[in-house]
Amino acid sequence: MLARARERPRAVVVVTGSELVRGERTDLNGPFLAREALKHGLEPARIAIVGDDPAELEATLRDALDADAVLVSGGLGPTHDDRTVEMVARALGLELVVDPDLEAQIEAVSRAAAERMRRDYAQFAPGVTKQATKPVGALSLGLAGTAPGLLIPREGGRVVVVLPGPPGELQRLWPNALQVEAFRELLARTRAPGRRVFRLFGVSESAVARALADAGGDGDGVEATICARDFEIHVDFVVDPGAEARADELEASFFAPLQEWLYGRDERGVEEHVLELCRARGLKLATAESCTGGLVAARLTSIPGSSDVVLGGVVAYANEVKERELGVPAALLVEHGAVSAEVAEAMARGARERLHADVAVSVTGIAGPDGGSEEKPVGLVYCHVSGPDGELGRELTLPGDRGAIRARSVVIALHLVRTLLTRSHDQAV
Amino acid sequence: MLARARERPRAVVVVTGSELVRGERTDLNGPFLAREALKHGLEPARIAIVGDDPAELEATLRDALDADAVLVSGGLGPTHDDRTVEMVARALGLELVVDPDLEAQIEAVSRAAAERMRRDYAQFAPGVTKQATKPVGALSLGLAGTAPGLLIPREGGRVVVVLPGPPGELQRLWPNALQVEAFRELLARTRAPGRRVFRLFGVSESAVARALADAGGDGDGVEATICARDFEIHVDFVVDPGAEARADELEASFFAPLQEWLYGRDERGVEEHVLELCRARGLKLATAESCTGGLVAARLTSIPGSSDVVLGGVVAYANEVKERELGVPAALLVEHGAVSAEVAEAMARGARERLHADVAVSVTGIAGPDGGSEEKPVGLVYCHVSGPDGELGRELTLPGDRGAIRARSVVIALHLVRTLLTRSHDQAV
Repeated sequence: MLARARERPRAVVVVTGSELVRGERTDLNGPFLAREALKHGLEPARIAIVGDDPAELEATLRDALDADAVLVSGGLGPTHDDRTVEMVARALGLELVVDPDLEAQIEAVSRAAAERMRRDYAQFAPGVTKQATKPVGALSLGLAGTAPGLLIPREGGRVVVVLPGPPGELQRLWPNALQVEAFRELLARTRAPGRRVFRLFGVSESAVARALADAGGDGDGVEATICARDFEIHVDFVVDPGAEARADELEASFFAPLQEWLYGRDERGVEEHVLELCRARGLKLATAESCTGGLVAARLTSIPGSSDVVLGGVVAYANEVKERELGVPAALLVEHGAVSAEVAEAMARGARERLHADVAVSVTGIAGPDGGSEEKPVGLVYCHVSGPDGELGRELTLPGDRGAIRARSVVIALHLVRTLLTRSHDQAV
Repeated sequence: MLARARERPRAVVVVTGSELVRGERTDLNGPFLAREALKHGLEPARIAIVGDDPAELEATLRDALDADAVLVSGGLGPTHDDRTVEMVARALGLELVVDPDLEAQIEAVSRAAAERMRRDYAQFAPGVTKQATKPVGALSLGLAGTAPGLLIPREGGRVVVVLPGPPGELQRLWPNALQVEAFRELLARTRAPGRRVFRLFGVSESAVARALADAGGDGDGVEATICARDFEIHVDFVVDPGAEARADELEASFFAPLQEWLYGRDERGVEEHVLELCRARGLKLATAESCTGGLVAARLTSIPGSSDVVLGGVVAYANEVKERELGVPAALLVEHGAVSAEVAEAMARGARERLHADVAVSVTGIAGPDGGSEEKPVGLVYCHVSGPDGELGRELTLPGDRGAIRARSVVIALHLVRTLLTRSHDQAV
């Protein structure tokens, strides 16, 4: 893996912004630039987020300069604490010069702004000169407001790209960088890798890792990443150009013992599989949720066009609502308790009947932190699905805090629907 | 600010994960650890995100070692590509040893998991030994699943903290790190700044920025950050020890013109305010959701103890469900359409009546990308709240994609409940 990643030109992303390094705002530019780099055949090696302290910024830029492409965002504004261009020049050992063409462009934008805001242009002039200052040899990528994007070609076919911080502006100027001769030459040396995605449910990360090892492991142009995410196992192949046959082989041997758990070969989530299984048979779906509080319905309806499958659902948090809205018998609640296989079953059947649905899924459980007992601990969850060809129920004891128990219950409930509908489908075929 | 920042011990955060450095997933650990560092008086100098390439990881860790606290997340799993502990040891020049106590703990967890999954424990054994391996001198912070958090004390009173990648697990083990003697000594050398938090809703970021400027701006030991987050405006004060009086003054003058929109002076979200307003008056709450598909109910029930207020709700995605489960008259749906003020009102009243609630809130809208028309475009949303002392409705035209429209509708709906209950309360007093 190391060898292959090393063969690709490396990209390092440097994101500047005090609010970002302090965790007060989520950075969007690093992930965007990393995805773009990978798409164009560069290996995103590191994303560094740094504030406006000059020493920290300069050190971070220096550390980045061993990369073939350094992609920098932010710190291009007119004020004194926007120091990116100055620090890039310092890290590269380049002089700063005022670009007269750039200055004329920025002046025009600033004069228009001054007029609009009824301010004296003289207030803007120092900022204009500051923003028209660039390292010797830097090429302008166009303006975002009054801030120019810049590309600095380096020896050895390397580049430094400097882009504005606002994500919309950065994404607008980025394609201009890709058009610059120096960057095109760098990208011409790469061949963008292929990507294959696999999703598994119900199997452990270590079992998948073992299957990969048993299949001979990755390498030889195929890099496999195994990642436990969202209570599933996601496997990514990054496939070097020319290694497609090797990827086919690895895919076949790796997943042969994992067929039972492999449910998807693309980015679609389980909720999309459920919607498509229903849609294919014209089935209407409803939900009945207690501890998940609406999250199952929310996840299903997060998908555009879900309204042709999802009728709706009942969040039956209180027992009275389970009785009145889902027809769960009071005696059942008394005898077995709200968190029981019997009540989960009655909830699913009730939702199916009341909402006139073909398929209904229910969840009831103890998400904690309170409400657990020795007999029924926090994490005890029952899911049930009732459909036209049968029913499935599951009892679970889930680890984690309230949020984790709820999130995991949602995933399990949706996979229960998928399993029932896939099974019916397989039997019908 | 610069001088002050330099006086604080520096923290560098290193986040590992191939899916993070490739921009395939958004990192939550870097911002969390940065906020925590700042809260405890450390200056977050840099967040570095790096993949599982050993050379990149080792270089990034080496670059981080000039910090007083290095906070590392991820790469602690049982598989071969989880290399964080090995690379931390290498960067620090420490031997790796298997910790027998740790091994016993991890074995116990793994044996229980093997039993639950009906698998042979022997399959887990190599992973157990791998995860029980730590740099000489490292202290365990407890287990997240089978992965131990670690703290490695360094000379000069510095520390390296290694935490698991799943955000929930990282946040659970982090407080244990703060209790370790070496970390406590480091933090004792800092004087943690005070922090004040303010939450506003319904006012623009630029209006808040103008209010700050009109109040004379920050500085003199008080640093104010204004941040648009989750469709609200959050303001943070970082207050140097000794600058409390200055902070009081700034707070008074800054927020005087913003009282109408200032709804909180702590970290509690709007859903917690709603629950507390209901609880104080013994009111029971229900929801009726169309385009938000259960997200309002899910957000309310994300709070432990919400069951004493929340009865439940109806996700009425299809019109038939609006009619049958919420009693929305068919004529109203035909005349005004499902996305209308009239239907929003009928949904809220229907939920209140059917679920025997005191207060009910409804949302109906067009989240897109399809389903819009010239008359009723994507982003058109109606919210309505019906309570014991009156009703409130709002029509909105929201920007953004499906996810943003849904998320923003949830926030607006909850603020509508808060506004109605606060108003009733104010009138009652």
